[in-house]
Amino acid sequence: MAAPTTFSGEVWAELRLADARDVPHIYSLIHQMAEFELLTDLFAATHELLTSTLFPTPQPAPFTSFTALILDLSPSPVPASADTVGSLRLDLAASPLADPEAAAFPSPRGGGRVTAGFVICFPNYSTFLAKPGLYVEDIFVRAPWRRHGLGRMMLSAVAGRAAEIGMGRVEWCVLDWNQNAIDFYEQMGAEVFTKWRICRLTGPALDKYKGTGSGSQEEKDAGKAE
Amino acid sequence: MAAPTTFSGEVWAELRLADARDVPHIYSLIHQMAEFELLTDLFAATHELLTSTLFPTPQPAPFTSFTALILDLSPSPVPASADTVGSLRLDLAASPLADPEAAAFPSPRGGGRVTAGFVICFPNYSTFLAKPGLYVEDIFVRAPWRRHGLGRMMLSAVAGRAAEIGMGRVEWCVLDWNQNAIDFYEQMGAEVFTKWRICRLTGPALDKYKGTGSGSQEEKDAGKAE
Repeated sequence: MAAPTTFSGEVWAELRLADARDVPHIYSLIHQMAEFELLTDLFAATHELLTSTLFPTPQPAPFTSFTALILDLSPSPVPASADTVGSLRLDLAASPLADPEAAAFPSPRGGGRVTAGFVICFPNYSTFLAKPGLYVEDIFVRAPWRRHGLGRMMLSAVAGRAAEIGMGRVEWCVLDWNQNAIDFYEQMGAEVFTKWRICRLTGPALDKYKGTGSGSQEEKDAGKAE
Repeated sequence: MAAPTTFSGEVWAELRLADARDVPHIYSLIHQMAEFELLTDLFAATHELLTSTLFPTPQPAPFTSFTALILDLSPSPVPASADTVGSLRLDLAASPLADPEAAAFPSPRGGGRVTAGFVICFPNYSTFLAKPGLYVEDIFVRAPWRRHGLGRMMLSAVAGRAAEIGMGRVEWCVLDWNQNAIDFYEQMGAEVFTKWRICRLTGPALDKYKGTGSGSQEEKDAGKAE
C-alpha cells in the first residue's frame, strides 16, 4: 500500500525507535532542517556517517546513547509495538491534509505509512543531581504536518520516557527570537534559562589542540633538557 | 608522604582519568562548586549516585560516555601514565602557594599529591556533522590553585583528546555576565553563541509526563471504546 498524498479522516501518528532502514529519510529530514534554519553550509552528514554513529553494532539500549526516533503517519490504526515511544490520533475530517512529498517519504515499516519527522536525543549528566538527564538535540516535523500537536506529542513522549527511566531532567535549546517556541515550551512546564551561553570549539579552532594533552608538557620539558 | 599545605618551587599538575577511589573528592568538589555558584539548594549528589553513574561496571571507554577527570598537584615529577590526559609544570619559586585544604584532599594516587579540581564531560551529537562531539559539563579548580593556567591546561587537554578521537566539536556553557570567562574562551578560539537559550524540564514539571508516551493514546482510545 503506497502512502497517499492527501490524508483525510483519521490518521494515526506513531513516534518509534528508528533503525538503519530509516537512514535515508533521517538524512533528508536533517537536510530539510538545515534549509529551514538557513544553515546548509554546515551540513556535512552522509548516509554512512549517520549509520555508523546512530546505529552501531551492538546497538546500545534506547536513551542510553545517541537515540534516533522516527515519526510515522499511518492511514490506518497501528498497534503499539516495543518500538513505540508515543502516539497520537489526528482527526482530519474537517480539513484534509496535502503532503506533496509523501511519495518521497514512504516509511520502511510499510502499511501506507509516511515518515514525517524525527527526534535525536542522548543522555547528558547533571553533577548536582549525580544523575543522567536527556538532551534533545533535534525535534523536526515536515512542513505539512506542523500545527497538529505532533511536536507536543513527540516532546511529551520523550520526556515521559526519560522520567520513567529515572533521568533527572530533559533539556534542549531554543533561539531567543522564537517567542512562539518559548511560549510553547514554558506552557509545557519548561524553564528557559536566559543567562547561559553556549561556547563551541570546532573546525581549525579545535584541531589546533591536537597534541596539547598527555605527554606534551613532558615532551617540551625533554626538549628543554636537550 | 602527606601533601604539604604550602607548595613552593616546582609543582607538577596532572589531569588524569578518575576512578571510583576519587568519588569522595569529586563529591566535595561538586559541593564547593555549588557553593561558588550559590546553588547548594540544587545539590543532591551522593557518593553512591556518583559511583553508580560515573563508574559503572563495565566502565565504558573514556570519552564515550560520562567521563570524570581529576586534577592532581604533585610536589615531585609524575611520569605520564595511560590515565594521563594533560599536564603542566608550575613554577612557584617566586611566590609559594598556600593550600589550607590540602590535608582534606590527599589524592588516592599517593606520593604527596593533592587533588585540586575535576572535569566532567560526555559525548553529544551534531546532526549536521553526523558526528559525536564532547560536552564539558564542569571544569572546576579549588580556589588556591586558580589563575595558574590550570583551567586552560584542562580545557586544552580535553579539547585535544576530543579532536584526536575524531569528535567534531567541543561545547560548554558560560554565564553571560562572566566577561572574564567569555574573553578567555574566545581567546582560546571558541565561538560564544548569543542567540540560543537552554530549556529544561525537571522535578514535578518533568514527572507529569510519565505515562504520556507509548500506549497512553491507545489506553485512552480503549477507555473511550468501553
